[in-house]
Amino acid sequence: MRFRFKQPVPLSLLRPPLPASAFRSLSQHSSFGIAFDIDGVILRGANPIGNSQRALRRLYNDSVAGSLKIPFLFLTNGGGIPESRRALELSDILGVKILPSQVVQGHSPFKTLLKRYENEFIVATGKGEPDVVMSEYGFKRVVSLDEYASYFSNIDPVAQYKRWTTRQESKCSKNSDKIIHQGYSKKVKAVFVVSDPVDWGRDIQVLCDILTSGGIPGEKSWHQPPLYFAADDLQYQAAFPSERLGMGAFRIALESVFNRIHEKPLELTCFGKPNPLVFRNAETILGHLLQSDVRRGNGDPGPGSPSFKTLYMIGDNPLVDIKGAQQAGHPWFSILTRSGVFRQRENHTQYPADLVVDTVEDAVAFILKREDAS
Amino acid sequence: MRFRFKQPVPLSLLRPPLPASAFRSLSQHSSFGIAFDIDGVILRGANPIGNSQRALRRLYNDSVAGSLKIPFLFLTNGGGIPESRRALELSDILGVKILPSQVVQGHSPFKTLLKRYENEFIVATGKGEPDVVMSEYGFKRVVSLDEYASYFSNIDPVAQYKRWTTRQESKCSKNSDKIIHQGYSKKVKAVFVVSDPVDWGRDIQVLCDILTSGGIPGEKSWHQPPLYFAADDLQYQAAFPSERLGMGAFRIALESVFNRIHEKPLELTCFGKPNPLVFRNAETILGHLLQSDVRRGNGDPGPGSPSFKTLYMIGDNPLVDIKGAQQAGHPWFSILTRSGVFRQRENHTQYPADLVVDTVEDAVAFILKREDAS
Repeated sequence: MRFRFKQPVPLSLLRPPLPASAFRSLSQHSSFGIAFDIDGVILRGANPIGNSQRALRRLYNDSVAGSLKIPFLFLTNGGGIPESRRALELSDILGVKILPSQVVQGHSPFKTLLKRYENEFIVATGKGEPDVVMSEYGFKRVVSLDEYASYFSNIDPVAQYKRWTTRQESKCSKNSDKIIHQGYSKKVKAVFVVSDPVDWGRDIQVLCDILTSGGIPGEKSWHQPPLYFAADDLQYQAAFPSERLGMGAFRIALESVFNRIHEKPLELTCFGKPNPLVFRNAETILGHLLQSDVRRGNGDPGPGSPSFKTLYMIGDNPLVDIKGAQQAGHPWFSILTRSGVFRQRENHTQYPADLVVDTVEDAVAFILKREDAS
Repeated sequence: MRFRFKQPVPLSLLRPPLPASAFRSLSQHSSFGIAFDIDGVILRGANPIGNSQRALRRLYNDSVAGSLKIPFLFLTNGGGIPESRRALELSDILGVKILPSQVVQGHSPFKTLLKRYENEFIVATGKGEPDVVMSEYGFKRVVSLDEYASYFSNIDPVAQYKRWTTRQESKCSKNSDKIIHQGYSKKVKAVFVVSDPVDWGRDIQVLCDILTSGGIPGEKSWHQPPLYFAADDLQYQAAFPSERLGMGAFRIALESVFNRIHEKPLELTCFGKPNPLVFRNAETILGHLLQSDVRRGNGDPGPGSPSFKTLYMIGDNPLVDIKGAQQAGHPWFSILTRSGVFRQRENHTQYPADLVVDTVEDAVAFILKREDAS
């Protein structure tokens, strides 16, 4: 295990660790919590890396089967399936019981837009089942871009050359029949990029059609419907040895093309890390996890909602995970692993982490030792 | 028929038409020729528009079945299949006999690079059969990007979300077996975007892999292999009512992403209209057509290679067809139709054509009347 701190300075210059007694007075457990990035930290593709299974097991009580000892969650910019399904997948791969509330994906904050768009006609795109994700959040009139594009003959000029399709067979959103009957004159009120787009050319074309037309392809309008991205990762660590282009790269491609064919520049909102709101939200969820753990008789939270002394963000991407934790400020402590996007010996220059380690197992070992909770 | 000239000026301010006698002295036929754009002028998708069939028939001798009266060719930025095959397709759709030499596609000038890359390992991408096109030009070691990508597991991180509608036929180029046996350490010496890319996301990813690595994905290099585009059309008129994004839009998307992940800006070369070389090449081919027509006993070309008094470019895209003809200068005369990308009543502001008409039929009627050749 090789720890490497933000700067080659004595350990005494680190933010001083809290005395172990501080936690014991709150509960037997912790007033700290952990947020794990997934791709490049816990998994590469669908395979565990960095002894992530063993590391996660250390956060559970051996005595009470499956009960959480340390509150933790996954804070990923990925997505494409509902949090409930992702929790099952992760439980299966990692061999511990992950709750849906422990999974915060790039698109999870889209829930906060429910009031505005609950009954509006919206389009969702990205790998997996973007429309199902949005339906589960409560959006009542969402269609996937796959389905939306299928309403318009010849909208994709190279469709005939595709020997593949992104369409899920007969898995249209619940509301699609109604919309098809109403014709295609339904104005798109907002577009959501839920997960990494699969068919970039078709998506850029159809998004330009929707966004330059005010919501009805073929019409002309200056009013651009709002466009939301679940994240803005330029690159991420997938199964291929070198980084792959992510949603941020798609955003750059869309924006550069849109701004060449339309006078008014593209307007958009990006959620996901490094947005500080994502870290505030994670803090709230970790608080709930701690409270529900306490309610099960595992300790005494004291009056009011718990306030964490330290929250650890473990990630592989300086521009996303570390920048995000730094911008969020107290109580976040950033740990950068060398198992994904970042591979250098020395700390990252622009966004130095509080600590650099090789693997997530090293990170968890450091935290438990520092918190006297192993 | 509504003619509209470059400026709202009297006809007398037009470049004065040559007297009909000028042509009769060269041959019974013409010292003028015509270059037709295809998409938005002759066809929309696969359907003839603007009475293109009737217009083209006027360029043939009725007396001699199928013999050309007026030298003409198609000058398109499109492509994806060999010129011989495109000539057969066009003959079938348009009901006249089109020779392969009458078809100049965006990628046709790639032939001029044969000396440099004939025996080099090159990658070709785009709709249709980019590797077959390049093989027919004589390139001996070309593979399609489809095939190249298939050598690398997980190179496309969203491949699993693409549902193949047809079995991926083993449509490998003649040399692929050899290359597969040699492994993937073969350095890519150049990349050719032959026609409109189909799978933008995968292509941008793999092109970034090749071009940032010096030709071997995963390696690091400052030397970018040369990248050639057959054309640079931002948009073009296909079957959909409004314009579709073309190769130029793909170029913008690739360039903007590449320049964000790589310090040295992307270097590339674009062929196709409006490149003046394309118009020079068209002039040469039209000269050959006239000569071979003359050789068949249809006139006397006089000594040396024929020199045209006027060459007409009929196109729908001011930024491509009209700009190109203007930049090429004498003997080009530009005619803009309102049947494709351009739809305005008045002439284009930035690149005003010598003449604006509604359809290709109007354009041909104007030319034949002006040349006294109807």
